[in-house]
Amino acid sequence: MKKTFECNAVTVLQTADLLNEQKNITILTHHRPDGDTIGSAFALMYALQSLGKTVRVRCPDTITSRYHLLSDGAYEPSFTLMEGYIVAVDVGSASQLGRFEKKYGGKVDLCIDHHYSNTKYAQNLLLQPKSASCCEVILEVIDALGVKLTSQIANALYGGVSSDTGGFRFGNTTAQTHLVAARLIEAGARHPEINRALLESTSRDRMAVEVRAKSSMEYFFDGKCAVMYILPSMAEGLSINDGDLEGFANMPRCVEGVEVGVTIRHQPDDNCRISVRSSQVVNASEVCSTFGGGGHVRAAGCTIPGSPTAARDVILSAIAPFFAGEKP
Amino acid sequence: MKKTFECNAVTVLQTADLLNEQKNITILTHHRPDGDTIGSAFALMYALQSLGKTVRVRCPDTITSRYHLLSDGAYEPSFTLMEGYIVAVDVGSASQLGRFEKKYGGKVDLCIDHHYSNTKYAQNLLLQPKSASCCEVILEVIDALGVKLTSQIANALYGGVSSDTGGFRFGNTTAQTHLVAARLIEAGARHPEINRALLESTSRDRMAVEVRAKSSMEYFFDGKCAVMYILPSMAEGLSINDGDLEGFANMPRCVEGVEVGVTIRHQPDDNCRISVRSSQVVNASEVCSTFGGGGHVRAAGCTIPGSPTAARDVILSAIAPFFAGEKP
Repeated sequence: MKKTFECNAVTVLQTADLLNEQKNITILTHHRPDGDTIGSAFALMYALQSLGKTVRVRCPDTITSRYHLLSDGAYEPSFTLMEGYIVAVDVGSASQLGRFEKKYGGKVDLCIDHHYSNTKYAQNLLLQPKSASCCEVILEVIDALGVKLTSQIANALYGGVSSDTGGFRFGNTTAQTHLVAARLIEAGARHPEINRALLESTSRDRMAVEVRAKSSMEYFFDGKCAVMYILPSMAEGLSINDGDLEGFANMPRCVEGVEVGVTIRHQPDDNCRISVRSSQVVNASEVCSTFGGGGHVRAAGCTIPGSPTAARDVILSAIAPFFAGEKP
Repeated sequence: MKKTFECNAVTVLQTADLLNEQKNITILTHHRPDGDTIGSAFALMYALQSLGKTVRVRCPDTITSRYHLLSDGAYEPSFTLMEGYIVAVDVGSASQLGRFEKKYGGKVDLCIDHHYSNTKYAQNLLLQPKSASCCEVILEVIDALGVKLTSQIANALYGGVSSDTGGFRFGNTTAQTHLVAARLIEAGARHPEINRALLESTSRDRMAVEVRAKSSMEYFFDGKCAVMYILPSMAEGLSINDGDLEGFANMPRCVEGVEVGVTIRHQPDDNCRISVRSSQVVNASEVCSTFGGGGHVRAAGCTIPGSPTAARDVILSAIAPFFAGEKP
């Protein structure tokens, strides 16, 4: 369904007014749900329910058990019942609605988000791109609604804040993020449990692949460059999806003395997907753009056809000039 | 040198007064220095230097490069020059002074600490056991001294706060910890870099042992118990010390579905050092006390003589009743 309206930018107070007017609300998360979209949805649901409204959360995909502390067990995986006022949280574009896109992509009444890249697909949009997590925005809305923070709401919000900042480690973490975390802990968030479930737990199969990938690590340029391989054979017989391999690109650079970490993922079509993560010397974006890829100075990617070792040699030759002092 | 005085408990303001009276100060860290003792020492040094005092930090052991952001490169590894007023930070007992104990154990004029177990070895003691890190106490002292936070001081303090809370993940993290982190980021702490250096970086050899240990993981009780082995053969040819294996005990419990994680470390004397980490069902302390060990409900340890597999069978038999519903 195509949208037939202009997106209306709203403030926190206007958002609270819009929500206050409703009696029946459906909150949508993005597909492949993470801690921030789930935390945002359930925190807002509990807050609005405390005001006597009928509210439900709908998620395009299954919510895995690691997020149960955030939803407090309230989730019923129904994909049909969606009525009333439609609110999307942490959903940057209609396509992020996954299986809901077709039916609801053009019917979102209100979007609350923090993605710079928000496509303004909703009727009303509360966008705060400087917030590290959507949950920080939701907290402002809850404050504006005059709802007191319960431990249930605090758990949901803390989960979103912590997962979108990698446990306060990513560069998007601000002083404000910590002020929010302080309030949530004060309100009873069970932070050690949430952090363990969201940040430290890994599946048995993922750990198996991690072990195999780390075993493949090779070092170059006096240990300043580490290369790690992810080969199809490493996941043979295991249940592994793309999401499970999230974070693998950061592993090589965690080794002491490594300035640039390269991950080479061999694809079934004999292409290699390359991730480059650098600390200070190597311009990852420049390295990857040589091969038609791109990204940021410290994190970039590209695709190189051929075998993993061939791809390695090619990428190392693009990295070499940085260590030879030829490049800034 | 034995102490010849009663320890005098002091407040933050009294601590600031004591320091204000001095012109020449030596700050001592504890041995095997970690982020909190190093951060505390250098933050206090920079603060006192800004007041025109002559101050130096002395550390009983080498400060490794991962802490350089905290000291801002100011450390001269001299073990001789120690004069003036002696201040120990994050040092819970004279024995924690390591190689300095003999000469300075009874000569500490002021100790600033957060360990419950502080042995009151110093002339004056500012002790705040509810603080997650000593750096939080140091920040109060710096405030009382009227010194404005520089980014240099903020880096040092942030490093201590982050490392003693496992990056805000441990149960000791409080709302206050996050309020402090917010101030430090506001003051210019380079938090993503510090977190990477302190929390995520690992040596090549440690990663090699980690890979081997994780490869040894076995599962019992429908995957609710994971057992991991650390054998001398896994570290063969590698440069690994006891400190490098810190944190390994937490690895088994990070696997999804695992309620209790057991680490079995085979010693050269054919004893096995056992660590038990549980989430909710198993009382780790009770399990370990069966074998003369002890600890907390969620984290305990013991020693069992014999081979790793024999030790495993013995410890599993002590865990079994919890899964059979025989124990609370």
